[in-house]
Amino acid sequence: MDVRERLAALRAQMHEQGLAAYVVPGNDPHASEYMASHWCEMQWLSGFNGESGTMVVTTDRALLWTDSRYYLQAGIELKDSTIELMRESDIDCPSVVEWLKGLQVTGYGLRVGLNPEMFSVNDFKAWREQFAEAGIGVKSVDLIKPIWTEGRPAIPSDKLYPYSADFAGETVESKISRMREILESKVESRKSKDYALIVSALDEIAWLLNIRGNDVEYNPVVISYVVLEGDKCTLFVNPEKIDSAAQNYLDFNNIDVQPYEAVFDYIHGLRGTIFYDGAKVNEALYEAIRKPTPAPSLKGGEQGANAKNIQSPILIDKAKKNAVELEGERIAMRQDGAALTRFFKWLEETLVKSQESRVKSQESRDKRPLTEWNLMEKLHAFRAMGENFVEESFGTIAGYQGNGAIVHYAATREHCAEVKKEGMLLLDSGGQYLDGTTDITRTVWLGGRIPEQAKLDYTYVLKGHIALQTARFPRGTRGNQLDALAKQYMWQAGITFGHGTGHGVGHFLGCHEGPQNVRTDNNPTPLEVGHIISDEPGIYRTGKWGIRTENLITVIPAKQTKATTTEDEWLTFETLTLCFYDTSLIEMSLMTEDEIDWLNAYHVRVYKEVSPLLNEEERKFLARKCAALEI
Amino acid sequence: MDVRERLAALRAQMHEQGLAAYVVPGNDPHASEYMASHWCEMQWLSGFNGESGTMVVTTDRALLWTDSRYYLQAGIELKDSTIELMRESDIDCPSVVEWLKGLQVTGYGLRVGLNPEMFSVNDFKAWREQFAEAGIGVKSVDLIKPIWTEGRPAIPSDKLYPYSADFAGETVESKISRMREILESKVESRKSKDYALIVSALDEIAWLLNIRGNDVEYNPVVISYVVLEGDKCTLFVNPEKIDSAAQNYLDFNNIDVQPYEAVFDYIHGLRGTIFYDGAKVNEALYEAIRKPTPAPSLKGGEQGANAKNIQSPILIDKAKKNAVELEGERIAMRQDGAALTRFFKWLEETLVKSQESRVKSQESRDKRPLTEWNLMEKLHAFRAMGENFVEESFGTIAGYQGNGAIVHYAATREHCAEVKKEGMLLLDSGGQYLDGTTDITRTVWLGGRIPEQAKLDYTYVLKGHIALQTARFPRGTRGNQLDALAKQYMWQAGITFGHGTGHGVGHFLGCHEGPQNVRTDNNPTPLEVGHIISDEPGIYRTGKWGIRTENLITVIPAKQTKATTTEDEWLTFETLTLCFYDTSLIEMSLMTEDEIDWLNAYHVRVYKEVSPLLNEEERKFLARKCAALEI
Repeated sequence: MDVRERLAALRAQMHEQGLAAYVVPGNDPHASEYMASHWCEMQWLSGFNGESGTMVVTTDRALLWTDSRYYLQAGIELKDSTIELMRESDIDCPSVVEWLKGLQVTGYGLRVGLNPEMFSVNDFKAWREQFAEAGIGVKSVDLIKPIWTEGRPAIPSDKLYPYSADFAGETVESKISRMREILESKVESRKSKDYALIVSALDEIAWLLNIRGNDVEYNPVVISYVVLEGDKCTLFVNPEKIDSAAQNYLDFNNIDVQPYEAVFDYIHGLRGTIFYDGAKVNEALYEAIRKPTPAPSLKGGEQGANAKNIQSPILIDKAKKNAVELEGERIAMRQDGAALTRFFKWLEETLVKSQESRVKSQESRDKRPLTEWNLMEKLHAFRAMGENFVEESFGTIAGYQGNGAIVHYAATREHCAEVKKEGMLLLDSGGQYLDGTTDITRTVWLGGRIPEQAKLDYTYVLKGHIALQTARFPRGTRGNQLDALAKQYMWQAGITFGHGTGHGVGHFLGCHEGPQNVRTDNNPTPLEVGHIISDEPGIYRTGKWGIRTENLITVIPAKQTKATTTEDEWLTFETLTLCFYDTSLIEMSLMTEDEIDWLNAYHVRVYKEVSPLLNEEERKFLARKCAALEI
Repeated sequence: MDVRERLAALRAQMHEQGLAAYVVPGNDPHASEYMASHWCEMQWLSGFNGESGTMVVTTDRALLWTDSRYYLQAGIELKDSTIELMRESDIDCPSVVEWLKGLQVTGYGLRVGLNPEMFSVNDFKAWREQFAEAGIGVKSVDLIKPIWTEGRPAIPSDKLYPYSADFAGETVESKISRMREILESKVESRKSKDYALIVSALDEIAWLLNIRGNDVEYNPVVISYVVLEGDKCTLFVNPEKIDSAAQNYLDFNNIDVQPYEAVFDYIHGLRGTIFYDGAKVNEALYEAIRKPTPAPSLKGGEQGANAKNIQSPILIDKAKKNAVELEGERIAMRQDGAALTRFFKWLEETLVKSQESRVKSQESRDKRPLTEWNLMEKLHAFRAMGENFVEESFGTIAGYQGNGAIVHYAATREHCAEVKKEGMLLLDSGGQYLDGTTDITRTVWLGGRIPEQAKLDYTYVLKGHIALQTARFPRGTRGNQLDALAKQYMWQAGITFGHGTGHGVGHFLGCHEGPQNVRTDNNPTPLEVGHIISDEPGIYRTGKWGIRTENLITVIPAKQTKATTTEDEWLTFETLTLCFYDTSLIEMSLMTEDEIDWLNAYHVRVYKEVSPLLNEEERKFLARKCAALEI
């Protein structure tokens, strides 16, 4: 089937169901950031291979919404497909819901089909309510399953593996019993065993059961569901994924196993209070809950369950890393720092060599140019040398010169720039180690005269980056209260950036996790001890350069000072990331004494912690990069 | 009737209505900060004369909730009243709603009576929902009116007066037509004339109709309601308040007048879309709206109105001062600066004289000690000399030494401290001028050796105060994003404060207004050009001193810089307040060059703008206070 045939098959299904439109949102049932190819329905239907997009099909039109990162790619891939591109980053582009609300169909009530597995409960509700305002009905139905029968990739069947409590810092038993206590306190009738928590977020499941897997790129998770009850805990997973060691582990921890697809029937059989996190749990799971009949007869109407939308207690707890997890992060950071040191040494030497060979003779011995793609591969290779390295934690962004200004830039082997001994390189990368997850951005100057504005930009970013990680604040402070600390210097120069200043980071799990973050928009979550967030302000000059400087930092208690006037507990950050900054880009006249002191102390620490992993030449290189700045 | 008799009379009413409890919340029907004595029902019922409190009466108990400012006063005034004091600032004190939810009454359904005029629609709804959870019903009923028949003060009948567009900067016609445009855009059916807006906030009415009055302390407002419709505008007000000039003014502007009490019947007669701001409009007005019958027969069920809860467009517009209002503020600030200069000069001379007389002879010529109360009276007198001064904008806070650490301290003639030529004085005061409203806090050192910590505290506050008013930020930034800028320096020292950093300020209206502010808690309102807010960080050391430094500042467009990377519009603040700071309290080693430059430039401006209003001696004094600091 080609795309036109797929659209025709979908329209036949829509006709059968009496639907005026069908939406394919580009999600999976687990609200995952990285999806297994089994769920790439939007890509299959449209022929567009970008990571993000939403398809809408009506009786006579087909449209794909995607953002500016993918305009070019979508333009090429949608050619001859009859699919119209909706440029959702453009100010005048209607949202999918707005566009659908404008659909006029006469003669019968307009209904839109949505696959409830692909929408969170909260999103589904919001869409339904918005549609209702426009007199549009919604039907929960999966129309892709009946037509995508040929060549659909299976759900991954890789083995899952136990993740030792030596790394996790807490046993499954302990985690489960703590979660049960929390849930029991939320059950209204206090019939304390009569409850269940539906868990569908893959990182929450991995954390709760101390398991890991290889089902998706970048995140070591296992495709599965969990239902946690007062007296049992059931993992819904493809049985092929469980070898005998895994089975023993699950048995030992009293975790029942059922087939992945059995979760819907299982939920339908539940009674009592059923907790779910409506931001994560998909609508299909919610629809499986047997709601009480509205007016039960006195003889006993059908007994149902009491569904309660809560923020997942696993999400909240997982974000607060324990001492073992944090110690693991520190170990991973030393590995990561060593890999980056080797990488930057290699890059410097490679650029010098390539220049020398050009100077010495017009004929270079190696004519292949050095590209952004080469840098990504080389960095991966250096990381892979590290102990306990598993995989990258996301696709490396190596943005040379103007490419650095494209915030979600992703070079490919085919499309990437040549890197020379001049100008600016932005490098954002990270690793998954058994010990923990890393994510770091450094921006370095590769050669040539540094423009004055480049130094100013780099220094505004650096000052904000330091201001955030050295902040001290009372317990209860939210991340968005600290956001301006990282922006205040660039704001004075009339500069800002559009992405978040800091995202939460998991422990050998998602490089992006909630609920903690540092962003412009309000997030009610206060920063708490053990939260890990990134600290990554940036400045982007289209066509010229992008500058971003990123460390991971963790919230720690701050010492009480003698000057304090309050009973507040005070918090601050510990910097986890261990890698030097390019000091050649610093405009020293903008730096305060305190900032220079901080930078020098940080460089002393980087050298001290990373150098034991290096050979002598590498140590010399690192010592040069960590040399103290004079005030 | 004494308090016991009043309680007995209330209980008789409660019995008749079948109520287990009745709540008297200490509000008025207009959600006013300052209330006319007619509405001081809580005070009348309890005998407690504090400004803030809530009474709850049950069949056998009577309780008064009030905060720590009033514990002492309440303890004295409630003696022998049978009323129990509930200390609501204490951590273990249940809220009124919590306490009522704990009431156990058997035999019949428990109902609580609330006067719907004394609760906003939103609050009433929230209370009703919380009560419903506990199986408690709510009855809308005014039980004070039938029992407070003797000696109840009338609603003030002072004349209202037109407020010239020369001060307001916009005619009533223009304001009303703009509000109508906004409302028409919100009417769903676009039958554009078929709507009404209920206005009950007194400052919104004063702003919309360009009228002012003398009905309450500190705020020049007129007790009234307004209903704005597509084709008319009706002011509900005691007719005695309107003299012939006012009547001509209202006639000229096509404003109908009806008696104050007629508003309920009038609202009941309205059809179409009725807009109200549920945060301000009281529940009784909402209950007067004729809701549509739920299932109208096809022959035409009773036609009702469609009530819509919106943020008042008057509130939003009033906050954005026009050029004339801002120019008026600048004029008022010069008057205010002159008054404060004269006051501080008088204070300095008086303290020197009192010390000299003590030194010269043990017998002072004037034995009366100088008190906080004297300072408040003297400052009022200096302000009253100013052109267009009308009244104070709130009760002056003159907190000497440890009293400065009590955030809502209010000295009285009877209870106030003696002020000597030593230690710290915090002075927070403001004026209502026809030109605009002022609010300023200065903290000064009156004599003796300055403790090191006092200098540090003063300087942390000053640095934060400067950081906020010199901030530059992209349009769309909310006040709570800037809050940490004012706190970052004291946070580093482990110090914070519990009050807001900045409140909105009206133009010859409330010294506190919404929706704009700078606080810890999230407020979705972005800062907009023309907003006036205060900038008032503080540090409070119980028993020692309180330091607060406050200017009013207004949001203005910032110039685009050459370095900008974005299309954002940029905003910054103009400082409106014109009064020197006590530079003797500054710890210079903590100040940056930029901060000292800002301070010196500000002092140059203060001298330039205020000195023309002063005599030669006063100018000399001001010049000395505004002397440049050396870097």
